[in-house]
Amino acid sequence: MPSFPPLFVVLDLCGVLAFAVNGALTALRLTRLDVVGVVTLAMFTALGGGMVRDIVLGDLPPASFLDWRYLAVAATGGLVAFVFGRHLERVSGPITVLDAAGLSLFAVVGAAKALEFGTGPVQAVILGTVTAVGGGTLRDVLIREVPTVLASDLYAIPAMLGASLLVACAALGVPALAAAGVAALGCFTLRMVGVRFNLHAPAPRR
Amino acid sequence: MPSFPPLFVVLDLCGVLAFAVNGALTALRLTRLDVVGVVTLAMFTALGGGMVRDIVLGDLPPASFLDWRYLAVAATGGLVAFVFGRHLERVSGPITVLDAAGLSLFAVVGAAKALEFGTGPVQAVILGTVTAVGGGTLRDVLIREVPTVLASDLYAIPAMLGASLLVACAALGVPALAAAGVAALGCFTLRMVGVRFNLHAPAPRR
Amino acid sequence: MPSFPPLFVVLDLCGVLAFAVNGALTALRLTRLDVVGVVTLAMFTALGGGMVRDIVLGDLPPASFLDWRYLAVAATGGLVAFVFGRHLERVSGPITVLDAAGLSLFAVVGAAKALEFGTGPVQAVILGTVTAVGGGTLRDVLIREVPTVLASDLYAIPAMLGASLLVACAALGVPALAAAGVAALGCFTLRMVGVRFNLHAPAPRR
Repeated sequence: MPSFPPLFVVLDLCGVLAFAVNGALTALRLTRLDVVGVVTLAMFTALGGGMVRDIVLGDLPPASFLDWRYLAVAATGGLVAFVFGRHLERVSGPITVLDAAGLSLFAVVGAAKALEFGTGPVQAVILGTVTAVGGGTLRDVLIREVPTVLASDLYAIPAMLGASLLVACAALGVPALAAAGVAALGCFTLRMVGVRFNLHAPAPRR
Repeated sequence: MPSFPPLFVVLDLCGVLAFAVNGALTALRLTRLDVVGVVTLAMFTALGGGMVRDIVLGDLPPASFLDWRYLAVAATGGLVAFVFGRHLERVSGPITVLDAAGLSLFAVVGAAKALEFGTGPVQAVILGTVTAVGGGTLRDVLIREVPTVLASDLYAIPAMLGASLLVACAALGVPALAAAGVAALGCFTLRMVGVRFNLHAPAPRR
Repeated sequence: MPSFPPLFVVLDLCGVLAFAVNGALTALRLTRLDVVGVVTLAMFTALGGGMVRDIVLGDLPPASFLDWRYLAVAATGGLVAFVFGRHLERVSGPITVLDAAGLSLFAVVGAAKALEFGTGPVQAVILGTVTAVGGGTLRDVLIREVPTVLASDLYAIPAMLGASLLVACAALGVPALAAAGVAALGCFTLRMVGVRFNLHAPAPRR
């Protein structure tokens, strides 16, 4: 992603930090880990989705893996969560907001990158969603949880909405930055509405 | 797989549908999921094995990912299973047969594609087997089951037989279509015999 | 890795054998598997780390997958563990030593290959560690254990030390063979000290 403006990289790194902190806190809440485990899971949560996208696109080695800033920010997020875990639980409000921002950014970036690589629109929506929720899914698999994205909350659906908005805007010829803004806002809004009103995707009747 | 005849694509899509429905039903039986989770797991079951094969072969992005028909059929299978879950349980006989057909097709296609990419015979057998059982294994990991393929039933072994028959036929110069027919029939027969007589691979004595 | 001398391949195959036997024994201890499952998990443990490294580096198909000797040795290790499982538990001492040797070799080889592919030093340390611990992590995910590498023992840290020593030696211009020796020795020593004195990485206070 060398063509993205510096502002974009800063936003992207904020998303990485939020995902790393939130991923490490989730892992600490659910299982017993040492410092290596916490930092590893923070890095998986923050960078895993983008890496799966890049593997599917065949863009190897993955860009975020070659850029040391992504690795450093993700590892720092994990260390911060490891050291301040108990205190960070108290500020879960801001962390949820940051996480929703990360979700939005990752969905938009993932879909945009897929389009750049020439995939069809459906594939771009899938890869945008994978970028946003893939890292958390890998973390949940590693700590032996059923991935929350499969079973609860509106989490994958806002990401899908964001990616779809970006793909639709691109098809309509909306300029890149405006498209990214609209798409990220849509994802962020739906995610926060879901958190506020505790919405869920439909589940089978028992 | 652009060189395969149309009949072949139709058969392949039938296998995808069977795997998607069966994968979603298995997931619904074992864990609590919303509609996003069920469709996701159906797509993993149906397309995961081929994607892992393509990643190992370095054929990226995976062919079945770029072809929207595969995505659409897999997602449809998941939706059908989500909506009609309870009723489909009653027709588990036909679904088992369709699933065995899918297993046979995937084993044969996977092994043939590996040979096309110039791997050795052992590698082609492994990749045929991975194509056939990889998707179900990914699903089981995501819903936190020990992959059934590792622990029960004759499931991987028929796939291995089918892939081996294809590789052997190819080495003996049997024409492609006949080789595929023989190999798929071998896999299908052993799978159905295993289901009928409840056969298992040897397990360690306790 | 065509440029490595024959001695090196022999050592590498010893590491593969140790990982395969140890991986299969761990799987047998923790869950009920048939012979297909045991051999599959042995192969994942022995070859999975290197394959993940090669996927990230984009070096596909993975070298160890194309070399039948690696597949044969890994499968043999799994079969040996399946057949002699109970007896091998009694020689766990030598197996731990062999496993530590495999860990050291894999960490060094993985880091060296990453450097050869032009990654930065941090990435080379990560990929060396992934090569060493990735296979066992995949096995643990498949048998539904929280990966031991995330939660206990000094296992990832010696691998990280070995990979770091190799990267540091390479940066200082130490000749390849001496660098590999120093790095492997560092990893092996720390691992065995950890086993002997039952050391752990810091975990969060409860």
